[in-house]
Amino acid sequence: MHDLAARLLAGERRALARAITLIESSRSDDREMACRLLDSLLPQSSRSLRIGISGVPGAGKSTFIEALGLLLVAKGHRLAVLAIDPSSAISGGSILADKTRMEQLAASERAFIRPSPSGGLLGGVALDTREVILLCEAAGHDVVIVETVGIGQSETAVADMTDVFVLLQLPNAGDELQAIKRGVLEFADLVLINKCDLDPTAAAAAQAHVSGALRRRQISAADPGVLCVSALRGTGVAEFWAQARECERLWRTNGEFDRRRARQARAWMWSSLEAQLLVDVKRDPGVAAVLATLVDDVDAGRIAPSSAALRLLREFRSGAITRREADR
Amino acid sequence: MHDLAARLLAGERRALARAITLIESSRSDDREMACRLLDSLLPQSSRSLRIGISGVPGAGKSTFIEALGLLLVAKGHRLAVLAIDPSSAISGGSILADKTRMEQLAASERAFIRPSPSGGLLGGVALDTREVILLCEAAGHDVVIVETVGIGQSETAVADMTDVFVLLQLPNAGDELQAIKRGVLEFADLVLINKCDLDPTAAAAAQAHVSGALRRRQISAADPGVLCVSALRGTGVAEFWAQARECERLWRTNGEFDRRRARQARAWMWSSLEAQLLVDVKRDPGVAAVLATLVDDVDAGRIAPSSAALRLLREFRSGAITRREADR
Repeated sequence: MHDLAARLLAGERRALARAITLIESSRSDDREMACRLLDSLLPQSSRSLRIGISGVPGAGKSTFIEALGLLLVAKGHRLAVLAIDPSSAISGGSILADKTRMEQLAASERAFIRPSPSGGLLGGVALDTREVILLCEAAGHDVVIVETVGIGQSETAVADMTDVFVLLQLPNAGDELQAIKRGVLEFADLVLINKCDLDPTAAAAAQAHVSGALRRRQISAADPGVLCVSALRGTGVAEFWAQARECERLWRTNGEFDRRRARQARAWMWSSLEAQLLVDVKRDPGVAAVLATLVDDVDAGRIAPSSAALRLLREFRSGAITRREADR
Repeated sequence: MHDLAARLLAGERRALARAITLIESSRSDDREMACRLLDSLLPQSSRSLRIGISGVPGAGKSTFIEALGLLLVAKGHRLAVLAIDPSSAISGGSILADKTRMEQLAASERAFIRPSPSGGLLGGVALDTREVILLCEAAGHDVVIVETVGIGQSETAVADMTDVFVLLQLPNAGDELQAIKRGVLEFADLVLINKCDLDPTAAAAAQAHVSGALRRRQISAADPGVLCVSALRGTGVAEFWAQARECERLWRTNGEFDRRRARQARAWMWSSLEAQLLVDVKRDPGVAAVLATLVDDVDAGRIAPSSAALRLLREFRSGAITRREADR
């Protein structure tokens, strides 16, 4: 364990991969080890910047991330790119499954790219990703990008684990209107109008529209910026990075950075607790003994689901006690 | 309790209101009572039809629901309209807060309209709403409509508690494209293009576009329909009802109706269990004793959130045992 932590802190890629495997294990002794590892690595995470990037399929997320990544690598940063893709569970498709989409960046020694884990519920994937962020930071990646598609829950999840949340939009009249309606702009720190080289007039109109919408909302720390970029041509990427850095500087100065991370950490603690409790419940022999019958009754409408939950809870409570007594 | 159930089954409105209050209570003895009540009322729920209606603000949901509701009431149905509005927790605004929006329907003896409970996390609101559906059905409401705004999580929640999930769209080129991209169409059973009287050409184009998109997806039971309606003029509302009934007939015949309800009931059981476990944890004296320090450590980045969760879990496990022993 100490060895793994030391090798990970030294930036060894295989140690990072092994630590990720440990994190993803659901065995309870692995979980204990994973938590001890995370605690020991935690001090390394405070200097990193976590950037969330969301946008509908086709908005140009991977092209943008590759352009940004190459810029960062050239500046001497070490970058990690992670992904959360709710559709991968359903369709098997994954936004980062095809690594060739970021070919140049993937070839860099200074970049670590990890596709969205396929399968699994969003909650579990999100929890794992939070822990993987910590591991990447400990391994020396000072910029962590978490990519997601612009679909409700995963967008919220990514906003809840990053310092700067960026929305990538197309210069399309319907697009930014929808974003406003959908409430995504409620939590976007920066908005990028991508592919602005294709139709500069439409891009400028979209920029003005989004800026107007953003001005109407209540801003606590800083006015979010709206930038026109072309990921394909690399236009605006350096400006984006400067603005992200400026957000970071401002928020680190006025305390917003730490407040946000603290708020996120607390929510993460509760989600993690819930997930682990559920593992406990599903492994409980008393629960297992009645579960099949209860599920049948629930399926057939003979018992209310809330009522079945209450019975499982009762089994779980008494089971834990009985087993402990038997251990003596 | 027996009295409450009897009065509720007789359709007494005050009994329904009292039962809802009981459902919403988080006291553990109330919870036991609520579950017993739900079990006793469950047999009444199998004949109802639950319709979910989603759409962005401005799509005309309440106008449509009022038009549909008045039609159903005239046909002799008894209707309940519930709402889940994730924005009500943040902004205080609520989609059904202003009852005057459905003035005529609200005046009907045969309609029960309940605004979205303000505050509370979406999970809790969704669980309560599921239970309120059962209560309404027991009180004789044979059609239950659950309204939500077209924002990720609440949309999924409503689709997961209804038999027919309907998406209300505007005849706007961007609108249906976004819905497709967002994946909402993945679980819409019927799509309505509203306000089609304003621009019949655009409406027809939108209808063709959505129909095309829907044909491409894998359909298990029936091809979802796309209808042009005008909620304001009442055009297409009867056609919608006929189509919803046809879905119901088909799915009841081929078993899809029961399979869906069973799947939903099972997911509901697990959510309810998680919610109740968390209440247990938060009330645990052992957890309470260490929680403040742990939260401080998490806030300050001295301990990983997953690790704090593990410690809370340990307190919770041993606390339950100790208290039980002390009771002897």
